[in-house]
Order: sequence, then structure tokens, then C-alpha cells
Amino acid sequence: MERIKPRTLSGFMELLPPDQVKMERFMETLRRAYSLYGFTPLDTPVVEAAEVLLAKGGGETEKQIYRFTKGDSDLALRFDLTVPLAKYAALNYGSLSFPFRRYQIGKVYRGERAQRGRFREFYQADIDIIGDGKLDIINEAEIPSVICRTLTGLGLTRFVIRVNNRKILNGFYAMLGLTERGADIMRTVDKLDKVGKEKVREMLVSDTGLSEVQADEILAFISITGTNAEVLSALESYRGKNEILDAGLDELRAVTAYLPEFGVPEENFAVDLTIARGLDYYTGTVYETMLTDHPEIGSVCSGGRYDNLAEYYTDKSLPGVGISIGLTRLFYVLQEQKMLSDALLTAPADVLVIPMTEDLGFAVKTATVFRDAGIRAQLYTEQKKFKAKLSYAGKLGFPFAAIIGDDEIAQGKISLKNLITGAQALVTPDRAVIDVLCVISEQRNVKVISE
Amino acid sequence: MERIKPRTLSGFMELLPPDQVKMERFMETLRRAYSLYGFTPLDTPVVEAAEVLLAKGGGETEKQIYRFTKGDSDLALRFDLTVPLAKYAALNYGSLSFPFRRYQIGKVYRGERAQRGRFREFYQADIDIIGDGKLDIINEAEIPSVICRTLTGLGLTRFVIRVNNRKILNGFYAMLGLTERGADIMRTVDKLDKVGKEKVREMLVSDTGLSEVQADEILAFISITGTNAEVLSALESYRGKNEILDAGLDELRAVTAYLPEFGVPEENFAVDLTIARGLDYYTGTVYETMLTDHPEIGSVCSGGRYDNLAEYYTDKSLPGVGISIGLTRLFYVLQEQKMLSDALLTAPADVLVIPMTEDLGFAVKTATVFRDAGIRAQLYTEQKKFKAKLSYAGKLGFPFAAIIGDDEIAQGKISLKNLITGAQALVTPDRAVIDVLCVISEQRNVKVISE
Repeated sequence: MERIKPRTLSGFMELLPPDQVKMERFMETLRRAYSLYGFTPLDTPVVEAAEVLLAKGGGETEKQIYRFTKGDSDLALRFDLTVPLAKYAALNYGSLSFPFRRYQIGKVYRGERAQRGRFREFYQADIDIIGDGKLDIINEAEIPSVICRTLTGLGLTRFVIRVNNRKILNGFYAMLGLTERGADIMRTVDKLDKVGKEKVREMLVSDTGLSEVQADEILAFISITGTNAEVLSALESYRGKNEILDAGLDELRAVTAYLPEFGVPEENFAVDLTIARGLDYYTGTVYETMLTDHPEIGSVCSGGRYDNLAEYYTDKSLPGVGISIGLTRLFYVLQEQKMLSDALLTAPADVLVIPMTEDLGFAVKTATVFRDAGIRAQLYTEQKKFKAKLSYAGKLGFPFAAIIGDDEIAQGKISLKNLITGAQALVTPDRAVIDVLCVISEQRNVKVISE
Repeated sequence: MERIKPRTLSGFMELLPPDQVKMERFMETLRRAYSLYGFTPLDTPVVEAAEVLLAKGGGETEKQIYRFTKGDSDLALRFDLTVPLAKYAALNYGSLSFPFRRYQIGKVYRGERAQRGRFREFYQADIDIIGDGKLDIINEAEIPSVICRTLTGLGLTRFVIRVNNRKILNGFYAMLGLTERGADIMRTVDKLDKVGKEKVREMLVSDTGLSEVQADEILAFISITGTNAEVLSALESYRGKNEILDAGLDELRAVTAYLPEFGVPEENFAVDLTIARGLDYYTGTVYETMLTDHPEIGSVCSGGRYDNLAEYYTDKSLPGVGISIGLTRLFYVLQEQKMLSDALLTAPADVLVIPMTEDLGFAVKTATVFRDAGIRAQLYTEQKKFKAKLSYAGKLGFPFAAIIGDDEIAQGKISLKNLITGAQALVTPDRAVIDVLCVISEQRNVKVISE
């Protein structure tokens, strides 16, 4: 037979079982955290009509999109989860209750240049809160709490959610008579972390065409740092000069007002006037999240407030706020940084049941007792030497083996071997259930990331 | 602005939130059941190289597949989860430990003619156990137990897992000198349920070209019915006449031997000599699962034993056994039959926290207390009348509302309203946690299907 060489496309993540178990834990943690805030799960097709996905059109999107025809249909793979959400909200406007909160964890596709750490198929994990006509500011205040609980659930503690409000920036630029150049300035200022203050000043003058005085004003403004209270207080000195800035300042105050009640520790949150986010789409609060010890990773969770989710599909005004985690890239980077926890068990089950006799009745019954108790049990019945069976258990990382020979059957007991400690005891199946549950219940608290 | 009409492609399922919650429960139940048997989760790309997916080639597959180019690459969307598994096992042969047990729940794509209840994007939920060179028969015996636990977990009790062994059929046809016509005969006999015995006899003679005596022999053979013990006993009368039949009979005995120990009730299992499965791929045990009260749905879970998973990619012999649930179609049919449970809560959260004051501190704190206790809580802060807020809670099916006004804040308590019973009480947040947990912990036992 002629054989085809098996391969997986470059830019498409496909994990070996132990890593896949960790990825599942990522997704489970995200689902749980999002659910605690009343986000409902959503699932939309991977394939959509091209004209629907490209309603906004233009730019990188159109170049990178996977687009193809099938019969008469012009189709495309979704390149994010926001456009499908906009379509969904417009299409089902009459059936949804607003505010509509949904989370979606799904694969998206971008035909980027293949490159280490760049993915063409990758998971995004999004939450959005959509209002009908308007949306209370408290929803924006809640987002840092969601981010905080999500990252904490994954095992991270050393991170900072950096928050700004684009109205403050836009208002400030207007004060300097630079309304039109707002977008250019934000793009330049966005490079502050990478190129430093001096270089940004230079670029503002030479590339963006600002006067030196204007450049200095901007740098002074975004240099306002300190505790949240200090930054807000410094911003108050600008109040009364521009309405947009004032509105942004009010919003920023509202977003920070209930942080303690939302359970967000002070050290995980920072008002940061340098945050702008590239997309024009955002109109108010914007978020970025940096890992304190790994700034090189960039933001692991970003988003913001927008005024009109679905303007390409409907005349209904649907303002909202949302954030996104680029799950595949985050997983890849943490894997590279060796930050995925070794303490998380990745075996396919909790117990490997190893019968040593021809009659399998008692072994099968034991596996069923385990399963009825919610313990994952695998029967191993291949014709191998005992050593090979134990080696299989060891290689896959099973925490327990239940060994069942004639002696065990005669006593109605099993030899339960803890493969982590090496301890072995002859116990009844019911006792074995308790012993295994004790160990694996601790597993539930093991975080997938170790800092 | 020119607007694009939002739409979802025909043949692509997209659910409203309450149904999506039920679908999530389906998947969660499947993941849990599969995990209990030591199946490890797997995730492979939706997009693969076309030559890899079409290694086997031919027939319907090639016509239905979504195939397209991007740059120089000839790509396709996967049309099942078996071919990607074969690729994965061949590609990662050296890194995997065998038997390799995996489950995968994922979307697959087939460009079928659009038709009510036919899907072009649909979920399959597969499990497979792959051996290296050989695989013990006990793995085939375990499959009915997995099916049983899975369907029971979904809420089904009235179903029958029908099991046969193709070696018995092939051996029997060989006895009649009909080895070459085996596949044709199986295809004809497979229609028994639909067209009846007389019609099958007629087709066997006129279409398949059997003699009347041969047709009668076949009908007599597949008419063997009764309890599992009775069918097996009747089959013993054929023993010793054909080696393949004898081997099949041994396997069938082994598959039925430990049913009680595997926890499979007698009424959910039937040896059924009429089951053949269309695919040539299967070489031994075959499974179909029928809902007793809904035979019109057809098999909801099918599969079987195969000798060579990945022969198109590798010279390694990888025998296995697997089953598949066509999740999207099953969900659709159960929805049509009104068999999805109304008892399952589909609200985005367990409690809607409704602040009635301007200061939101206590309300936010209360939501945090709920979340810390694992209770899903949504803050509702839109500027609406109280009635509108309660109506939002009612429409979305929240079981509880936590109403917080000046009186409540003064006492450090909340008015917890059970929206199902209408009962309302002024309680501390800690007491509210207990009250809510009592109700929602019962929810965990609610099955998604009601028969």
C-alpha cells in the first residue's frame, strides 16, 4: 500500500496527552471563572458566509482570512469571536435579554506568516457584556474582577491589570488642539514600554509632527504615576478644561471605586495612562494585563469598552465591554517558560486496575466500584509481564495501581499501590475508594500554572 | 452606513442561550463519563492537509469534503475524528503509550445537501482504544459499559445496546459458500428493521443472487433471538464448522461475560445477529444503540472493532475499538421530540443581585461573597424600574434574586427571593449562600434528557 506521510500543518497546535490535559484545565478554569459572573456559554459556527465576516472589511483581516467557495457559497473561517458575536446579537436581537453576557472559547483562524510561536489556528477565550442602547459603567468596573479571578484560578498572582480610559486621552489631546492626531499619538505612545521615553518624544516631534512643547505636555501627562489614588488625584488638576476628559475621569473613578468590594487586590490593579490599545473600536475604558515577572510576554488579557458592537448588521445601538485571552499563544509561551505546573497529574485516570488472574470478574467489579465513586479507573488487561504493566502506569503518571491476584480475590481485597509514595496496602475496594479520593481531591486545588 | 444582513449558514447549528446551556451539559456529561474509563482528552486541528485527510480517498468523502487552497497549501476541513486520530497515532507513535485511549469531542464538516435535521458542521464525540500490534478483547467488553454510563448520565434509561460480531457473520456466510458476497448480504440484512423479513428474503434471492435455501438459512440464522444466554446457546450449535465463526463466538462470549461486573443492566444489552454496520472497516465486535421508545431516531451511538487504524500512514499495526456519538444530530432530534429537560436551569447565573441604592458597595460585596462560595452571581445595575429588573430575572430563569436596598444595607442583610417558589427572606449574606447552595446542589443531579 502506498502511504502518505502523516503530518500536522505548521501553525496548528496539536498537543501530546499530558499537555492536552493541562490545556483542558486551562479551559475548565476559564469556563468556571466566567460562569461565576453570569456569562452564558455561546458557540457559533467556525464557518460563516464571507460577506458576513467581512462586513467591516479592509486591512490585515482580508489578507489573512481563510476564504473559499463550496458550490455557490462564498465562505470563510472566523478570524475572531467578536464579529460572530456581533452577527449573533443582531440576528437574535429579539430573543435575547439585555444586558447580554456571554463567554465563548473557540478556535479562530488567521493565515499569518508561519513563525515560531505564531499560530494560524488558535483559541480565543472572550467575554462580553452587551447593552441595549446603553450599559451601566459598573459593568466596566467588574471586568478587572473577572480577570483577577480567572488568572488567580490558573495559578497566577504576580500580574497587574492596567486600566485607562480613552476619553481621558482624547480629551487631553483635544485640550492641546490635537484632536485629529489622537490615533497617531496613541500608536506612538503605545511604544513607550518598548522604546523608552526619549525615543517616544523624538517620534512625536519628527514622525507625528508635534511641537516640542506639545510632546513634553504629552510625556508629562502619561508620566503621571503612583498609587491609583495618586494618579486619580493628579488627574483632577486637569478637570474642568475639557468635557470629554472630565467624562473619562468620572468613568475611571467609577471603575476603581469598588475594587476592594470586587475582591481585586490593590497590587493587581493599576491606573496607567500609557495604555491606549491599538484598535479604534474602543471608546472608553481599556484593559491590559501584564505578568510582573514576564513583561516580554506582553498583555495576556486585553479589551475595553466599545459603543457599537454590531453597526455593520443592525441600526440597533449595542454598546458593550469585553476582554479576550489568546489562549493558544498564552499556553505556548507558558510552556516555553516552563511555567506549566508539574504538580498537576496528567494521567488518563486515577487508578490503573491490574488483574493478575485469568478470571477478570473481581478486577472489573473493582473498576466499576471506583467509577461509581467518581474515580477514573482504567483496566489494564494486555498480556504483559507485571513489570511492563507497572511501567505503563509509571510512564503515564498514574497516581495509583490496584493490583488484583489470587490472594486478593480470596480475601475480597485489592493491593492498592500509591505510585507517588511507593506505599502499598491490602485493602477492601471501599477503603481503596476513600484512600484514592483523599489524594485526588487535593488535585482539584492544584493550579495549572506555577509562577 | 451600508448594512449586511446578518445570517448563519444553513446546516450550521447555532443555539440560543438556554439550549446552548443544555448542549454544554451534554458535552460535560460525555467528558465526565469518558474520563471515568481512562480516556484522555485529545484536540486536533479542524484544518488539515488535504492529502492527509484524503489518504484513504474515494466515494462520498471526496464529494462532501470542504477543500480549499491558501497560498500554496491544499487544505481541507476534517470530516470525522477517526482520520485525524489515525494521523495523530502514526505521527506520535513513539511518544504514546499503548493501549492509547482517547476521547475527542469536536466539530466535523460535510457538505451534504441542505435538509432539515442534516448538518454540515456537527459535533462528533468519539472514544477509541488503540493497541500496538494487538489489543485484548476485554477492551471490547468494556465499551457497552461506557455507552451505558454515558447515556444514563444524560438521563436515558430506556435504550438497548445491540452487539454482534462480524466474524460470526463472515464465518456463517463462509459455511454457506458465500464468502465473496458477505458485504452484499450484510448490506441487505441491515435493512431488516426497515423493510421486514419477507422483503429481505426476496432481495437476497433476486438482488444478491442467493438460492432460496441459502436465503432461508440466513434468515433462520439472524432470526435467533431471546435472552443473551439463549442466543449464545443457540449459536453454539454452529460451533466447529467454521474457524472464523468459532473465533467470533468466543469473542462475543468474552464481550458478554462480565456485563454484570461492568454494571451494565441486562435490559440495556442485547446480542443481536442482525447488526452488521455498513463500514467494511469493522472486523469484529460491532455496536449500535437504539432508544426503545424512539426507534425512528436510529442508532445514537455506534462503532466497533477494527484491525488497522492507520494503515494509510504507517506500517505499524494499530488495532482498536471505538464508538461515536453524533452529538449535534442527537441534540437536534431530542429537541424536536421535546425530550430536553425543562428541569435543568438555564439562567446565566444562580443569583441576580439587584441593588436599589446609589452606593453599590454592599451589593458588589454580596456578589463577591456568592462567587467566593462557588455560586454564580450576576450584578444587575441598569437604570430600570424594580419590576423591569425582576422581569429580566424571570425571563432568563434565575432561581434567585438578591435585593439590596437601604433597609437591607442598614442591617447588613439581603432580601433573598426564591423566584421558583416566590418565598422571600431577609438573611445575612452567609445564610443566603447556604440557602442558594441547597437549591443549586440539587441541580447537579438533574439530567439533561427527560424520557
